[in-house]
Amino acid sequence: MINTSTCVYGVIGYPIEHSLSPVLHNWFMSNYKLNAVYVAFNVHPSELKNAIKGGSALGVIGLNVTIPHKEALLGLVDEKDRDVKLVGAINTLELNAGKIQAHVTDPYGFTESLGQRKYWFKNAEVLLLGAGGAAKSVVYALEKLDVKKIWIYNRSAQRLRAFLDFCHNALTVSKVQAIDRKQLNDIAFDCKIIINTTSAGMYPHTGESLLRSDVFHDAHFVYDLVYNPEKTKLLLDAEHKGATIQNGIDMLIFQGLESLRIWTKQPLRLEAPKLKKIRHILQSRL
Amino acid sequence: MINTSTCVYGVIGYPIEHSLSPVLHNWFMSNYKLNAVYVAFNVHPSELKNAIKGGSALGVIGLNVTIPHKEALLGLVDEKDRDVKLVGAINTLELNAGKIQAHVTDPYGFTESLGQRKYWFKNAEVLLLGAGGAAKSVVYALEKLDVKKIWIYNRSAQRLRAFLDFCHNALTVSKVQAIDRKQLNDIAFDCKIIINTTSAGMYPHTGESLLRSDVFHDAHFVYDLVYNPEKTKLLLDAEHKGATIQNGIDMLIFQGLESLRIWTKQPLRLEAPKLKKIRHILQSRL
Repeated sequence: MINTSTCVYGVIGYPIEHSLSPVLHNWFMSNYKLNAVYVAFNVHPSELKNAIKGGSALGVIGLNVTIPHKEALLGLVDEKDRDVKLVGAINTLELNAGKIQAHVTDPYGFTESLGQRKYWFKNAEVLLLGAGGAAKSVVYALEKLDVKKIWIYNRSAQRLRAFLDFCHNALTVSKVQAIDRKQLNDIAFDCKIIINTTSAGMYPHTGESLLRSDVFHDAHFVYDLVYNPEKTKLLLDAEHKGATIQNGIDMLIFQGLESLRIWTKQPLRLEAPKLKKIRHILQSRL
Repeated sequence: MINTSTCVYGVIGYPIEHSLSPVLHNWFMSNYKLNAVYVAFNVHPSELKNAIKGGSALGVIGLNVTIPHKEALLGLVDEKDRDVKLVGAINTLELNAGKIQAHVTDPYGFTESLGQRKYWFKNAEVLLLGAGGAAKSVVYALEKLDVKKIWIYNRSAQRLRAFLDFCHNALTVSKVQAIDRKQLNDIAFDCKIIINTTSAGMYPHTGESLLRSDVFHDAHFVYDLVYNPEKTKLLLDAEHKGATIQNGIDMLIFQGLESLRIWTKQPLRLEAPKLKKIRHILQSRL
């Protein structure tokens, strides 16, 4: 029952109606027996500053931030953690006694979503599809997982060049290499790990995939950050050839959990049966 | 289940921990099957402006306002309804497309809390104890109930004079008359209706009453705006002599319901069995 001690958390986006975060976090609140609610705030970009200052004035403890605010926020916060400075994006705000601290939990969420599969990354060659905001977090996480090489493909060559500059200069990751359309499928065949960070294959464009369906084999681990549909064409093609596949729902869950750990300062754990449960709840909402 | 369509409402105060509004309104949300949550915001007076602007930016639809903000808000809103202009206080904000509209539902809450007893007020003489913010709303309501005369007693004579000026000038109610300590108990005996708007008798000062215990009789209707304890010394004394008594819990309920009607534009009704239920829930929270 909500009372005057109930803590308020929320997610800010525009539009916000497709966010799964309220369902995810209210499940967390119930699972961890926290006296808290988590709501969605539809905030127009022109109102972003008022919303953040106002959330702080209202005593809101934590906010997640999603499209289109993740980068615009960089100029509005008081403190950035190390990951935010490196990745250049924010997805979590901690509002504390008038001070606004920024965090990014996407890299952490990616790594924790791998579970024991994270050991597959050491010295592996990885093909990364996409050069947007999500790709930044993934490259940052891959560097920490000690991969050998990251090949990157992006449909827009201009954006790809900017992304490579970012990897070299901001992240100081040197093991990235851009590839073009002609090299793409050969390199996909050779890499043990393929990660899609683009929206190709996402609902309603469920017929799309950046890779040819015959490049997959059973030594592949194919990770698609998309989770709607549950299996994109990329994942279906890969599964058909015996590859191990994973969609983006666990990353969503673990980036959210890491936000909640930051807000509550509690070492919250999510055991396999519980993970399965919330994964099922979220998939049923799509 | 909270989702991205869930509307957010709340109450702003400082301190806020004793407010019953979250329990009351979340019961309303459930009773009326509204997809909404209502939370408590602890807002320091220096942050009031940021909180209101921020609530608006965040897409919060409605806010209640309580001590100490009810009067400070007058300069911060865009539009005031007629009752706010007359009573000079705000307890309800409607946040709508960047515009902040102010309402006061206390007078309405008082009148609706009377139920059929409201017919007892026509041409009656009323003794009003207190000259604070609550007394303003009650005098305004009494005028509409067509009482014959309002006798007013207040411990601070200076505040009483200011209150009389307010009644004459702002409310244009001329049937008010100040009385002093010496006249108090005789007038209490003669008036059919006695209303306490002071904090005398409120927890933890439960031994206090402004009236002598022998002035009551069975033709009295004694209304105490205090609801903690459920029966103040004033009400116990009156009940002991056979008077009809009422505490402030129904006024709390109906001022809240009126706020919700303003926010939702729905003609929400509260039938007797439901009223009894929420009254019981609130009393059990004290």
